[in-house]
Amino acid sequence: MSSGNAKLWGGRFAESTSALVEKFSESVSFDSRLYRQDIRGSQAHARMLAKVGVLGTEDAERIVAGLDAILERIESGQFEWSEKLEDVHMNIEARLTEDIGDAGKRLHTGRSRNDQVATDLRLYVRDVIDDLAELIGRLEGALLDLAEREADTVMPGFTHLQIAQPVTFGHHMLAWREQILRDRSRLLDCRKRLNLLPLGSAALAGTVYPIDRHYTAGLLGFDGVTENSLDTVSDRDFAIEFCAAAGLILVHLSRWSEELILWSTPMFGFVDLPDRFCTGSSIMPQKKNPDVPELVRGKTGRVIGNLQALLVLMKGQPLAYNRDNQEDKPPLFDTVDTVSMCLQVYAEMVPHIAVKRDNCRAAAAKGFSTATDLADYLVKKGLPFRDAHHAVGSAVGYAAQKGCDLSELSLEELRQFSPLVEKDVYERITLEGSLNARNHYGATAPAQVRAAIARARAARGA
Amino acid sequence: MSSGNAKLWGGRFAESTSALVEKFSESVSFDSRLYRQDIRGSQAHARMLAKVGVLGTEDAERIVAGLDAILERIESGQFEWSEKLEDVHMNIEARLTEDIGDAGKRLHTGRSRNDQVATDLRLYVRDVIDDLAELIGRLEGALLDLAEREADTVMPGFTHLQIAQPVTFGHHMLAWREQILRDRSRLLDCRKRLNLLPLGSAALAGTVYPIDRHYTAGLLGFDGVTENSLDTVSDRDFAIEFCAAAGLILVHLSRWSEELILWSTPMFGFVDLPDRFCTGSSIMPQKKNPDVPELVRGKTGRVIGNLQALLVLMKGQPLAYNRDNQEDKPPLFDTVDTVSMCLQVYAEMVPHIAVKRDNCRAAAAKGFSTATDLADYLVKKGLPFRDAHHAVGSAVGYAAQKGCDLSELSLEELRQFSPLVEKDVYERITLEGSLNARNHYGATAPAQVRAAIARARAARGA
Amino acid sequence: MSSGNAKLWGGRFAESTSALVEKFSESVSFDSRLYRQDIRGSQAHARMLAKVGVLGTEDAERIVAGLDAILERIESGQFEWSEKLEDVHMNIEARLTEDIGDAGKRLHTGRSRNDQVATDLRLYVRDVIDDLAELIGRLEGALLDLAEREADTVMPGFTHLQIAQPVTFGHHMLAWREQILRDRSRLLDCRKRLNLLPLGSAALAGTVYPIDRHYTAGLLGFDGVTENSLDTVSDRDFAIEFCAAAGLILVHLSRWSEELILWSTPMFGFVDLPDRFCTGSSIMPQKKNPDVPELVRGKTGRVIGNLQALLVLMKGQPLAYNRDNQEDKPPLFDTVDTVSMCLQVYAEMVPHIAVKRDNCRAAAAKGFSTATDLADYLVKKGLPFRDAHHAVGSAVGYAAQKGCDLSELSLEELRQFSPLVEKDVYERITLEGSLNARNHYGATAPAQVRAAIARARAARGA
Amino acid sequence: MSSGNAKLWGGRFAESTSALVEKFSESVSFDSRLYRQDIRGSQAHARMLAKVGVLGTEDAERIVAGLDAILERIESGQFEWSEKLEDVHMNIEARLTEDIGDAGKRLHTGRSRNDQVATDLRLYVRDVIDDLAELIGRLEGALLDLAEREADTVMPGFTHLQIAQPVTFGHHMLAWREQILRDRSRLLDCRKRLNLLPLGSAALAGTVYPIDRHYTAGLLGFDGVTENSLDTVSDRDFAIEFCAAAGLILVHLSRWSEELILWSTPMFGFVDLPDRFCTGSSIMPQKKNPDVPELVRGKTGRVIGNLQALLVLMKGQPLAYNRDNQEDKPPLFDTVDTVSMCLQVYAEMVPHIAVKRDNCRAAAAKGFSTATDLADYLVKKGLPFRDAHHAVGSAVGYAAQKGCDLSELSLEELRQFSPLVEKDVYERITLEGSLNARNHYGATAPAQVRAAIARARAARGA
Repeated sequence: MSSGNAKLWGGRFAESTSALVEKFSESVSFDSRLYRQDIRGSQAHARMLAKVGVLGTEDAERIVAGLDAILERIESGQFEWSEKLEDVHMNIEARLTEDIGDAGKRLHTGRSRNDQVATDLRLYVRDVIDDLAELIGRLEGALLDLAEREADTVMPGFTHLQIAQPVTFGHHMLAWREQILRDRSRLLDCRKRLNLLPLGSAALAGTVYPIDRHYTAGLLGFDGVTENSLDTVSDRDFAIEFCAAAGLILVHLSRWSEELILWSTPMFGFVDLPDRFCTGSSIMPQKKNPDVPELVRGKTGRVIGNLQALLVLMKGQPLAYNRDNQEDKPPLFDTVDTVSMCLQVYAEMVPHIAVKRDNCRAAAAKGFSTATDLADYLVKKGLPFRDAHHAVGSAVGYAAQKGCDLSELSLEELRQFSPLVEKDVYERITLEGSLNARNHYGATAPAQVRAAIARARAARGA
Repeated sequence: MSSGNAKLWGGRFAESTSALVEKFSESVSFDSRLYRQDIRGSQAHARMLAKVGVLGTEDAERIVAGLDAILERIESGQFEWSEKLEDVHMNIEARLTEDIGDAGKRLHTGRSRNDQVATDLRLYVRDVIDDLAELIGRLEGALLDLAEREADTVMPGFTHLQIAQPVTFGHHMLAWREQILRDRSRLLDCRKRLNLLPLGSAALAGTVYPIDRHYTAGLLGFDGVTENSLDTVSDRDFAIEFCAAAGLILVHLSRWSEELILWSTPMFGFVDLPDRFCTGSSIMPQKKNPDVPELVRGKTGRVIGNLQALLVLMKGQPLAYNRDNQEDKPPLFDTVDTVSMCLQVYAEMVPHIAVKRDNCRAAAAKGFSTATDLADYLVKKGLPFRDAHHAVGSAVGYAAQKGCDLSELSLEELRQFSPLVEKDVYERITLEGSLNARNHYGATAPAQVRAAIARARAARGA
Repeated sequence: MSSGNAKLWGGRFAESTSALVEKFSESVSFDSRLYRQDIRGSQAHARMLAKVGVLGTEDAERIVAGLDAILERIESGQFEWSEKLEDVHMNIEARLTEDIGDAGKRLHTGRSRNDQVATDLRLYVRDVIDDLAELIGRLEGALLDLAEREADTVMPGFTHLQIAQPVTFGHHMLAWREQILRDRSRLLDCRKRLNLLPLGSAALAGTVYPIDRHYTAGLLGFDGVTENSLDTVSDRDFAIEFCAAAGLILVHLSRWSEELILWSTPMFGFVDLPDRFCTGSSIMPQKKNPDVPELVRGKTGRVIGNLQALLVLMKGQPLAYNRDNQEDKPPLFDTVDTVSMCLQVYAEMVPHIAVKRDNCRAAAAKGFSTATDLADYLVKKGLPFRDAHHAVGSAVGYAAQKGCDLSELSLEELRQFSPLVEKDVYERITLEGSLNARNHYGATAPAQVRAAIARARAARGA
Repeated sequence: MSSGNAKLWGGRFAESTSALVEKFSESVSFDSRLYRQDIRGSQAHARMLAKVGVLGTEDAERIVAGLDAILERIESGQFEWSEKLEDVHMNIEARLTEDIGDAGKRLHTGRSRNDQVATDLRLYVRDVIDDLAELIGRLEGALLDLAEREADTVMPGFTHLQIAQPVTFGHHMLAWREQILRDRSRLLDCRKRLNLLPLGSAALAGTVYPIDRHYTAGLLGFDGVTENSLDTVSDRDFAIEFCAAAGLILVHLSRWSEELILWSTPMFGFVDLPDRFCTGSSIMPQKKNPDVPELVRGKTGRVIGNLQALLVLMKGQPLAYNRDNQEDKPPLFDTVDTVSMCLQVYAEMVPHIAVKRDNCRAAAAKGFSTATDLADYLVKKGLPFRDAHHAVGSAVGYAAQKGCDLSELSLEELRQFSPLVEKDVYERITLEGSLNARNHYGATAPAQVRAAIARARAARGA
């Protein structure tokens, strides 16, 4: 019976796909990146089919070997991808059948592209998460080293970007660390949730063959199998959850970037980024621009946009698989590339951030950063906190008018605002006095910063 | 020393806040919803201060009792919130001081609004998650009951919204269940990550008082304390993670809604929603509209938009707390209200979805839904899958032209497409034949659907 | 014939709406804000019905007067809104019928809530745009005044937040002005596109009455009537276009905010915001925080999120009206309130921004801001630009090492980098020399800034 | 003077850019697509420089010719792009200098990459808008033809996806048309706003050369020049406005897609899409899937995500140019490609949509689609609308119970609900009666549909 359409699925079609539609609907130009996962999944499927007797052992062996050969050809750049064959799955299967004959045609028994691509994607995201977790570990190490180097470096702590209280540079770096540890934890939760085998869901309803899904799951390192075939072929939660976690990573890196950009201005002058992480201007010869943090900050939009793209994609889709889902890949892949690259450049750059300690300290000395300490001093002398706060507020207003710091006011002047002030106040409102007094779990005293670093190193060792 | 600004923080200010700015920057109109958490947190803080000796025991007792009295007044609607007092924290503290005097002024010792609001928000989201988890459990129960009732009901399974293969209505309901179970799992992971005490981080750097953060954490049911004060006061990851999880919940409900809307059309006619969940038209007297699913589908945009709002909010913010963060609450609260309401109406409605079994079955009989079974039949007779697929495709084309189903073709006609077809084919390509043949873990055979329900009930019992 | 449902549309319903669904689906709690537009539209509709003879003149007069009375009651706070009556339309119509009897029941002839709400919303957005356009005009005026006051004030121009070239503060303010002028222009384009009458589209297909849509359009100040009834009742383009324009307004204000926040830090110290636009800290007595710009920056997320909500809402909706559309209002209204409030606080604050001219100038003198001028000097002496750039780059590196500005290098030192340098170089690389040399349309020379202000004032006068 | 960095801007740098950073920050891999605009802009710039005497005429000629040669090489695929040279601008300029020597080095006089890229991008978006406007015109033509062909075809009009009132297929197609006409109008407004020359803004502050910006503007077809240099180099409003307009295009196409997908189901069966626009299933031989509308619907997420990416990108950026802005291109280009492709496939497909008129008509006959006509009949007999609505509602309830249409009730039965019903009712509640009665501007009567088509054709002719 002749057919008007040469596609693998073309039996019922009276005419060939339009060239424009072929180009519009092909995915191999981007999903070829899944070849490793596709081959791994097909090999496991073939082995399972052989185990349950649906496929002859020899056929299974031919398939596994044929796929190994194809893998090698792809990795050495000798595989020719064809848009006519639509996607990574059809490209590999068609080649396999060319290479090994009828056994190749039997590979697709008991599965569909729907559960196949779901499997490929889960394997892919799992691999990606493993890579990112390692990368975050590397970045964490760099932050710990920098935090240790600058555990005593005084800098202004900001709220509202106004100088608030002195902190140490090391403490600040540990704040960054907390953010990426939460990020990693979110990635690992996502991994846990996605690590179930889709294969066997077939097109949407399962298959008539006596398959053993748990066996395939074991071969592929899955923790189990998915529960419901309809859900499985249409579920992209894991991609969205991954992209949401990635969005937060970029939000965090955008915050670091904002700080590095500020700190690199002549006005702040807190850090110096190495020349090799900066670029210049085509017209202004003096410029040295913090391009890396700027680009990372800019790429945040992209990653957040990708998350939104996926949410919009899935909104309102009826079960089960719809072709819309093909559009899950470009945003996912772009997210993977962007996050991975951004973490890499940060991991490279962090160890080389040069802290300009004098500038940091000088800035901390501005802005009445120890005013809270003066209030706390008064509280310890018995004043209710709210009254102390008010008295110090007035003192600050007075000193601001006079153009000097609180510690530069005379005892007499200070006593105008509260008779409780005595000489010992002067040792309480120095930068070091302030810092060292904040000496509890999670606070900024250098001793606490070192303790936190020690805990972190111990956890890494574990 | 007189001051130009009567605010609790007004000491250093030369003039009062502009009325416009007061209105622009107040938050009590929406953050008053946090009163329970704020009071709980303040009571724990006071107890801790007493334990470490910073506060007298009597003061602490007065504070705890005073706050209890305020809680009562709020819950009975007798508390007057004031925009002049800016936010929930200042409102409650100012009233407390009015009520119990100086002890009230001492409550804020060793903390700041920055760690206070972080604590309130974490407690709030934790409470919300507990409520939503229960609500999801209720909805899951309703789905299981419906799935059981319709475990044998044949309906068409769709891909690309084309009829694909027969499935059972019960199987479809179990697909819905999978989605919300993942949702709950994500919420619980979020809860686990957020359940650490922020208090003690104070404004940004910790406090000079000898506080015992772990003690406070214990009183408030936290699993531990946060690690870094700078990070703690500026971290809103948990709100974003919550809203991302909520976004997926709505994406799921939007998909159910799409299906219910389709199924309620005269063209599909698969279900009937009870009149009390529908409304009519002001002009067309015959209309009965599926308003509930439509509204839920519409509210998806809102929840996804809220997630985006929070991501944009945090992008590029330098450490530590910035006033921008006040804007975290409206999207968070709106998300909580929307998700909670949508889950509630679904939990109410699901038990009353009336399935029109005859229509479902009739639809499944259309669209060559057992064509795959015919292909599989040929495969079992020895044809490679790809060849079988092609033969059946041609047969479908032939039947479509003739305007009949595959099972209505004569043996002779069928044999045109493959000589392997024999009489027994007719028992394989009925709806029941197709359904029952998909009989493995996760597939749609009624026996499997019942097994899945049994597993689910067992898990709920546990 | 008795009915089980007392709603205006309840004829065919066998049971009352569930209380939960009533609460879930009511919109009067937020759409009551449309009462003015709803009444205006109904009055025009009644007049038109009378004109074409569908309604008696007396009935029409009673309706118009009855609606006037209701308007008065609403504006004086004496109207009781009822959630049972669902929305603003039903509330007003039910009350009207109570007040004037059968004439009230005739008002809905030839229309539906679908075209009614479309009309209300267009009138509302049109009113809002007119208000915002005026507000932008006020803000523009404030910027022009400030630009004029600071037309000569030297400050550093930044790229990559690194000091680039000197500019004037006035020039910077004019850059802000450009942004909001584009914003206004976009709003007015949106107004032009939406200003067509929906009424007459009825539920979706038009009406059987001999209505005169152009007459109604004239009464309501519309430029014409919409072209297609199906499109009209489901079109929310204008709301989305408005929200996109609003999103850009907030993006612009977020950029101003970022700058004001930076400029208010002790490190920059370029401006001082009046105390009445700032607030303090509950714990740090010295703090004066730039809350207004921070909040505006934070509200950007909200407005962008609202835009996203609307786009998601409309995605994939089949024609014509679906109940999802009710969800268009909360994001739209929140956007209106937020944008309007943010423009107002900026219009109030801008005139009172105190520029610290000395600090601005001192900063401009740092960072080799006239390096480009040196390069241009060399170009004028005949060096190709790229070579000049390279020579000056080396000179900057040398000066940076030495810790001084280019203008502090001796002639001998400068000549190391190019023998073309002569004594006259020193007058070219001062701040004023640099500024005044950029003297063409759109550039920063004070003369150009004044010319731009003059053009702007002329355009405003026009 | 030796330098450690060979970049064109490398004079002040002590070391080369890191390879990782080079790869991270290059843009030529995507911005090379701007080569045409870049060359056109450079040629105009050179001509202007010659006109004002900054460049010798011969140099200018050499530049123009050199750029022409490069253009040719690029278009014939013989140009080698180098990532080391960062971007399209540097690649072309470096090659030009190689080709023609010192004149090439002089091209960059009086401009910077900041105003250069702003110019390139505006030219690019302008070109794109012109292409899209034409494409929309083509699609509009296809819709008009289809509308004309099906001007009398009865189909059900839906609200809430419930059958509401009969409409014609032609009327429905004209609703689609309205949407894309608004889209085109938005694009053209965007074009109008962006069509101003950025060149001359240089890095951020203008240039010291006596340039003639209006002359350059004329050469490049701009309507004028931008007003403020700081604004100009940092403004990306036009890209965002374009992407917002594109977002709405996709929202519209997603709605058409949803309808085509529904209409292609066996349950609706309203249309048939040609085989060449559909694809099949790898496993289900009978499947013919509406891939094109599904993919278009899916791509909506991508385009909306891109818009969000750009909004996030610009949020909170201080003036003037920041490197973040480089990230404007990938979302913009992806939007252009996607929108353009989606419009193309629709323009190809629309003429070949086969309408199954019998199915459309049969569906319209279901669902009491003429109930409103019955109510209007009663109103014309003198019943207030609300009473008529209620009576018909009850009649519908009765007929639904009985399982027949309103027109199948006996006169006696109908009179149970209102004694005003007489024999002539039966000619009013047929499909044609209902359709033809809706006979005013914008309504669905076939006569009106034809009139609307005539107006549209006249407007196209103009």
